[in-house]
Amino acid sequence: MESKQTHFPKVIIIGGGFGGIQLAKKLKNKEMEVLMLDRHNYHTFQPLLYQVATGGLEPDSIAFPLRKVFKHQKNFNFRVADVQQILPAENKVITDIGEYDYDYLVMATGSETNFFGQKEIEHFSMPMKTVPEALNLRSLILQNLEEALMEKDPIKKEALMTFVAVGGGPTGVETAGALAELKNHVLVNDYPELDINKMKIYLIESDERILSPFSLEASAKAKEFLEKMGVNVLVDTRVNHYDGEKITYNNTQTIYTKSVIWSAGVKGALIPGLDKGELARGGRLKTTSYNLVNGYDNIFAIGDLAYMETEDFPNGHPGVAQVAIQQGQQLAYNLLRIVNQEKAHPFDYYDKGSMATIGRNKAVVDLKYWKFQGFFAWLTWMFVHLLFLVGFRNKLVTLMNWIVNYFSYDRGTRVIIRKFNRESMMEEATAK
Amino acid sequence: MESKQTHFPKVIIIGGGFGGIQLAKKLKNKEMEVLMLDRHNYHTFQPLLYQVATGGLEPDSIAFPLRKVFKHQKNFNFRVADVQQILPAENKVITDIGEYDYDYLVMATGSETNFFGQKEIEHFSMPMKTVPEALNLRSLILQNLEEALMEKDPIKKEALMTFVAVGGGPTGVETAGALAELKNHVLVNDYPELDINKMKIYLIESDERILSPFSLEASAKAKEFLEKMGVNVLVDTRVNHYDGEKITYNNTQTIYTKSVIWSAGVKGALIPGLDKGELARGGRLKTTSYNLVNGYDNIFAIGDLAYMETEDFPNGHPGVAQVAIQQGQQLAYNLLRIVNQEKAHPFDYYDKGSMATIGRNKAVVDLKYWKFQGFFAWLTWMFVHLLFLVGFRNKLVTLMNWIVNYFSYDRGTRVIIRKFNRESMMEEATAK
Repeated sequence: MESKQTHFPKVIIIGGGFGGIQLAKKLKNKEMEVLMLDRHNYHTFQPLLYQVATGGLEPDSIAFPLRKVFKHQKNFNFRVADVQQILPAENKVITDIGEYDYDYLVMATGSETNFFGQKEIEHFSMPMKTVPEALNLRSLILQNLEEALMEKDPIKKEALMTFVAVGGGPTGVETAGALAELKNHVLVNDYPELDINKMKIYLIESDERILSPFSLEASAKAKEFLEKMGVNVLVDTRVNHYDGEKITYNNTQTIYTKSVIWSAGVKGALIPGLDKGELARGGRLKTTSYNLVNGYDNIFAIGDLAYMETEDFPNGHPGVAQVAIQQGQQLAYNLLRIVNQEKAHPFDYYDKGSMATIGRNKAVVDLKYWKFQGFFAWLTWMFVHLLFLVGFRNKLVTLMNWIVNYFSYDRGTRVIIRKFNRESMMEEATAK
Repeated sequence: MESKQTHFPKVIIIGGGFGGIQLAKKLKNKEMEVLMLDRHNYHTFQPLLYQVATGGLEPDSIAFPLRKVFKHQKNFNFRVADVQQILPAENKVITDIGEYDYDYLVMATGSETNFFGQKEIEHFSMPMKTVPEALNLRSLILQNLEEALMEKDPIKKEALMTFVAVGGGPTGVETAGALAELKNHVLVNDYPELDINKMKIYLIESDERILSPFSLEASAKAKEFLEKMGVNVLVDTRVNHYDGEKITYNNTQTIYTKSVIWSAGVKGALIPGLDKGELARGGRLKTTSYNLVNGYDNIFAIGDLAYMETEDFPNGHPGVAQVAIQQGQQLAYNLLRIVNQEKAHPFDYYDKGSMATIGRNKAVVDLKYWKFQGFFAWLTWMFVHLLFLVGFRNKLVTLMNWIVNYFSYDRGTRVIIRKFNRESMMEEATAK
C-alpha cells in the first residue's frame, strides 16, 4: 500500500459487491487502514441486471462509483485492480498494478457463471453477471430481431425470434418475464412486419419446479404468471447441449434458437493462491462460523464465495445479497474484536425473505410467516430494490424509468450502443 | 424494399439525425413510402455527448430508439444498415444487409470528425461524434486518473492528469468546461491522494477567439468563464502534432498529455457513388436552394452534409441542428410538391440563435436582437436542450440528472463500463 504513515492494521478487501461495501463502511473511523480492490470502478447492483439486458434501465443506474460510496472516509483507499494471485505466506496480493501487503485479507469476490465444464455452452450462450454482459445481451436480442426482419428461411427466422433462459432461479424467471413483456408490449409496435406470435420464450429448469428455494406457493404462482404471459416453462428438464443454432434437452428434444441466456448455476470467483483453503461444492471457500477461511488465520471470505455450515444452514447459506450484507457487517464487528484480541462472535443469518418479479403487477414474496403474490408483492419488490440500490441518483433515475415504463408499457432504452460481436466481446465482458 | 404492395413513390432517407427524423415525420400519412436507413437503431442527441463523456449523463438518455419515434407511422420502415454505395443510375443503394430501390433519395448522414489528413492525430486523439466515442472518452479520462495514482514519474503523472480539447467551437468549450467542473467538484473528493492542482485543462483554438461564429461579447464571456474555472484557453494557436505523449502547437510549444479531445473540424459523411455531385469545402454536397444535389434530379442532401449558398449564407449554412431540422421540414413539403409536379420552394433558414454552456450558472446565448450570458443564459440553454431532446423518458431522466448534479455538485455516472483500449475500440466506435 502506498505511503500514508500509519500503524493501524491493514485490511485488504477484494471486491466491491454487497459484502465488501458493508464491511468497509462499518470500518469507517475505526483503527484500521482499509484498501479495497475491484476490477471495476463501480459497484454493480446485480439484481437489476436483467432490466438492463431487456432495455428497461440504463447501465449507469445500477452501477455506482465505488470511490463515491466512500467519499470522506479517511481510512479507506480504493484501486481498480485485477488481483492475480494471493501469497498467504507473505501476507501479500499480486495485482496487475502492483503488490499490496495486508494484515487481514477479506475475499469478497462473489460468484461467477458456472457452465459446469460445458465449453460449447459457455462459448455460445450469454451469461449475465456483469454490466457489460447485460449490455451484450441487450444488443444481441435487438440485433437478432433486426436480422429476423431480413431472414427468408423460416427455421432460421424462428431461431432468431426464439429466446431460451436456462435456470429457473430468480434471474432466469425475471429475464423470461421481461422478455415476454418486451414481446407483448414493445416489439409488437417496433416490428409490425414480424409475426410476433412467432417470437417464443422458454424457461428451462432442471428441478421439478422453478424458484425451487422458494415456497411451493411462490413457485406455482410464478409458473402461472409466466405461462399467462406466454412463456413456455419446462421443468424437470436438463439441457444437454447448445451449438449456437439449436439447444438439446432431455437428450432428444431440441429448440432452434440464436439466444440462450445462461443462469443455471454459479461458482465461487476464486483467485489462485489459497491452496490450503478447503473448497465446498460450487468452488466456495469453507469458513468458520465467523468467516475465517479454513486453514488460515488472517484470511476471511464473505458472501457468495463463503461456504459456512451452521445448524440452520447445514449446506451453507443461499447466494443472495442479504447474506453478503450481513456477513460484511458481522465481519467488521469481528475484525475489530480480533484486533483487540477478543473472541469473534459467530455469524447468525437473519433471513428477511425472498422475492422475485415476473412482470407488471406480478411478483412473488416469501416472508417467514407471510407469503403473498401479485400486485402488492410487486410493489414490495420495487420498494425493496429501490431501498437497496446504492445512491440517490440511481434510485431516482430507476424510479423514473419504472414509472415511465409502467404507464407507457414501454422499454425506453432499447438501444444498441455497441453491436454485439461474440468473438471480440465475450472475453472482455465475462467476469471482469 | 420488401413487399408491402404500394404504388406510392419510394423515399429512402439515409440517417436518423435531426434532419432525417423531421423529414420522415412530416411525411406521415402522405402518399409516400418512406424507408430510413441508419447504422444505429437509435437517434443520437449530439449536443449532449460531452456530458456522457464527462460522467454527467448516461448514454441511454441521449439515445432514442428510432423505431419508437415512428411507432404507428404506417408508411414508414426502418432498417439498421450500413450504406456502402449509391448507384444513382439505377436508383439503388447497396447496404450490408441488401439492396434497396428508391424514387427519391435523401442524404441525411451528417458530418464526421475531420482530422485534416493528420493520421497520427487521428490515431491518438479522441473524437466525440457518437455515443460509443463519448463512452470511450469517459473511460479514458477515468482510467488516466486511476493510472496517475500509481505513476511515480512526475512527467508521466502530469501527462495523465492533463486534458487538452482542440477546437474552440461549442463542443470544445463545453467539454473543457465540464472537465473543469469534474476537477473542481468531483475529483478533489474522489482522489484525495492526487494533488488536484496538477490536473490541467487546455482549450486550443486556431482562430483569434473561441466560439468564433458567436458574437464578440459571447466569445469574450465564454473565455472569461473558462479561465475563472481554471481552463487554460489558447487562441491563435495551431496544433501541429500529437504522438500520444505530447502535443506540439505553434511549431515549438509542447504540452505533455495522454488525453486529446479532437473537435477541431468536421467534414461531410459521404457515401461512395455520388460522383457527379459537386463538393464544397469540408466534403459537403453542393445543393440547389431546395436541397437537390447538383448533378442529380432525385437525390437530395440536408443538414450538415448539404452545402447550399444563399444570399444570407454565401458560404453555406452552419452545421447546427436547427439547419438540419428546418431543411428536413422544408424538404418534406417540397417532395410532396415535386411528386405532384409543382414547383419546389427555396429553403430560407430562420436563425433562432446560438448558445453554449460552460459550467453551472454559466452559459452564453446569442439571439438576433438580444445577447446575454450567465445564470439566465444557462437556464435557457437547459430548457432548449430538454425541449429538443427526443422522448419523454429521456427528457425526464436528463432533467433528474441535472437537478441531482446541480445540488450535489456531483457527476454520478463516472463509471468505466468498458475499459478503453485504443487498439480494439477506436475502429468500432468511430463513425459507426
